Amino acid sequence: MEPVHQVVIVGGGFAGLKVAQSLKRVPVHVTLLDRRNFYLFQPLLYQVATGALSPANIAAPLRSVLKRHRNVQVLLAEVLDFDVVNRRVVCREGTFPYDTLVVAAGVRHQYFGHDDWEPFAPSLKTIEDATAIRRRILTAFEEAELEGDAEKRKPWMTFVVVGGGPTGVEMASAIGDLARNTLKRDFRKIATPQTRVVLLEGTEHILPTFPVSLSAKAEQALARLGVTVRTRAMVTDVRADAVTFRDPDGTTETIAAKTILWAAGVQASPLGQALARAAGAELDRAGRVVVQPDLSLKGHPEIFVLGDLAHMEPSAGQLLPGVAQVAIQEGVYVARLIRARLRGQTLPPFEYKDRGNMATVGHNAAVADLGWLRLWGFLGWLLWLFIHLLYIEQYDNRFLILIQWAWSYFTRNRSARLITGETKGLRRANT
Amino acid sequence: MEPVHQVVIVGGGFAGLKVAQSLKRVPVHVTLLDRRNFYLFQPLLYQVATGALSPANIAAPLRSVLKRHRNVQVLLAEVLDFDVVNRRVVCREGTFPYDTLVVAAGVRHQYFGHDDWEPFAPSLKTIEDATAIRRRILTAFEEAELEGDAEKRKPWMTFVVVGGGPTGVEMASAIGDLARNTLKRDFRKIATPQTRVVLLEGTEHILPTFPVSLSAKAEQALARLGVTVRTRAMVTDVRADAVTFRDPDGTTETIAAKTILWAAGVQASPLGQALARAAGAELDRAGRVVVQPDLSLKGHPEIFVLGDLAHMEPSAGQLLPGVAQVAIQEGVYVARLIRARLRGQTLPPFEYKDRGNMATVGHNAAVADLGWLRLWGFLGWLLWLFIHLLYIEQYDNRFLILIQWAWSYFTRNRSARLITGETKGLRRANT
Repeated sequence: MEPVHQVVIVGGGFAGLKVAQSLKRVPVHVTLLDRRNFYLFQPLLYQVATGALSPANIAAPLRSVLKRHRNVQVLLAEVLDFDVVNRRVVCREGTFPYDTLVVAAGVRHQYFGHDDWEPFAPSLKTIEDATAIRRRILTAFEEAELEGDAEKRKPWMTFVVVGGGPTGVEMASAIGDLARNTLKRDFRKIATPQTRVVLLEGTEHILPTFPVSLSAKAEQALARLGVTVRTRAMVTDVRADAVTFRDPDGTTETIAAKTILWAAGVQASPLGQALARAAGAELDRAGRVVVQPDLSLKGHPEIFVLGDLAHMEPSAGQLLPGVAQVAIQEGVYVARLIRARLRGQTLPPFEYKDRGNMATVGHNAAVADLGWLRLWGFLGWLLWLFIHLLYIEQYDNRFLILIQWAWSYFTRNRSARLITGETKGLRRANT
Repeated sequence: MEPVHQVVIVGGGFAGLKVAQSLKRVPVHVTLLDRRNFYLFQPLLYQVATGALSPANIAAPLRSVLKRHRNVQVLLAEVLDFDVVNRRVVCREGTFPYDTLVVAAGVRHQYFGHDDWEPFAPSLKTIEDATAIRRRILTAFEEAELEGDAEKRKPWMTFVVVGGGPTGVEMASAIGDLARNTLKRDFRKIATPQTRVVLLEGTEHILPTFPVSLSAKAEQALARLGVTVRTRAMVTDVRADAVTFRDPDGTTETIAAKTILWAAGVQASPLGQALARAAGAELDRAGRVVVQPDLSLKGHPEIFVLGDLAHMEPSAGQLLPGVAQVAIQEGVYVARLIRARLRGQTLPPFEYKDRGNMATVGHNAAVADLGWLRLWGFLGWLLWLFIHLLYIEQYDNRFLILIQWAWSYFTRNRSARLITGETKGLRRANT
């Protein structure tokens, strides 16, 4: 009897998880390796960072999600390297042989050569990032309430978000909503609706991947939440209590702010470099792995790279964006290709079907571009709600999030406003 | 015009919060000082530690809870000392003058002179403790799944809880339930129902404050969840991977276990000592402050100590236990006494009305002793559910917890099974 075909998947995000799930009735054995024991619904991470949802609302244990997939083995392991000659993945916890390898290790944030900015302007990629940012935001209001001097109070009530993509827009609008609505009656000395929120974007428009008309709608919605948008603003310096940027006319401006958040850039997981060393993979400037039209590596048809880690250009200059739907469609494709190959067949190249783009702007507004339809405001938000509930992996999370959202929607409360973790350490670092 | 009477409350737990709330229509100004921005429903902390609830389900921002109490100012501050001569509370963040001072700073865990055991056997007092213990428990199963050697796997699948009071019983039974039910189908190599859970208690019976008949019921329920109870077991040593205890006949026994949890003892907040230095307060052996029949300090009628920090003996040898209902009743009494004094009146001494004791044992069982009624099993659990929902402070938490519980009850799922925080650090510490 032939041994069972071994598929090893590195990374349990949208792409890796979708491969594992789609191999359900395929005669392979799947090992899913991840450093974390849960699948994270990253598009909602900003809701944790602003106290609307709890971490467990947007994360589901990988073992639960894959409980009924008897051919899938989940292991909590940290991949160190790939041995492509002997077809093994080398982990801190042991080595795992593969016949087919799927690498979907994702991306991290990057500071364009200014890693020293990171402690002052944290990014939002992990659950820990989200609770740390929540702690910073809420602590800033607490410090403002304690501060007797009006001048010294201002930087505590100023929030700067760097980067006007969907994450930056959603963060800035959620902070605006928090200050204008949720916290309105919570404090006795400070007036939280006077909070200043500034969104800095380097290009001409916020949400640069959206049609200009929707960018404008988003900018109007942000203005209603008290968020000031500054476009064509290039950040030149970030310190503990100020951010400096250059305007297009060359003048520089400094905003005194105790809370600065970074949503401006990503770089690939270091496992991209490991693949470059081990399998001669070509990397792009952000460290993403350049893949063939079938998502495999050149010269290694048994190795696939997908999700945010993959550099996939269906036509020249048309790089697929690092969003959930690309990752999910790639996952489905690779699982189908693995099945086809086991039958001695193959598949035409991967083709991405763009179903559209969306971003929330505050409590009950969103912009959505479906190509054939553009929605904004409350209608856009309803669509956003529907799509996100549809894509959330575990049914009980979907159900509990819906309840929590409905509740928050009608009460305008954000009940997960907890300052947890190293509060004292943070305060010292900030002051 | 006379200046407004200033009440400063230190600690926003059951006792302190109740004082603040009960002063709603009293002509005083209240300052509530707490190091944390939330009120924690401690009796449910074990549900966070075992993945059934999220931190935000059992914690509510103090500002939200007190939003409509316009005479209450909440400040996030750490109390360093008391200046009873000038009637000021000295904090890291400033000094706060008082006419009446209420100290309800609670207790911490203690290791009876063996503080070196703490890193190996963490206790459950804070949200951070709960997520750290959740991480330990879940990581242990992950390590067991990764471990190829059956002998080496055993300590990962052995859990020891030290202390057979309500917290210890609830922790041990929740771990038993997790292993027997929730995780049953999650792993591929290990059989989680074979997990060994041992509960060590120093006295004759677990739940020593309950009637013996209910202790026996609890022991039976624990046995059904696979929990081994060892009574009259005195722990003599705790290491990273083993706990040693002495039987009543003098023989010592060592259990190899990677996960050891401590639920055995408490000591008062260091603010008790600060009161002893500043106001000559008398402390008991655990550092609790001995109070007068009206909960004030001897010689300082303007200072009250209540909650777990108070040593209150209505009759000799009848120390009031450190439970929520004592704290709540004390809070109501002190608020009434403050109001009476403002009117030039006084009140008879505080009288505690014992409404009973309860503890859950697993998924749908509890023991409850109401004095006039003893319940166990499913009926006890229904009562437990009712009482706990009744006492949870914020209505939206109450509503969301009920939904989450109903969901977990019918699916036997614990959806908050996230390993967050310093996983790698933990692993190194454990191995």
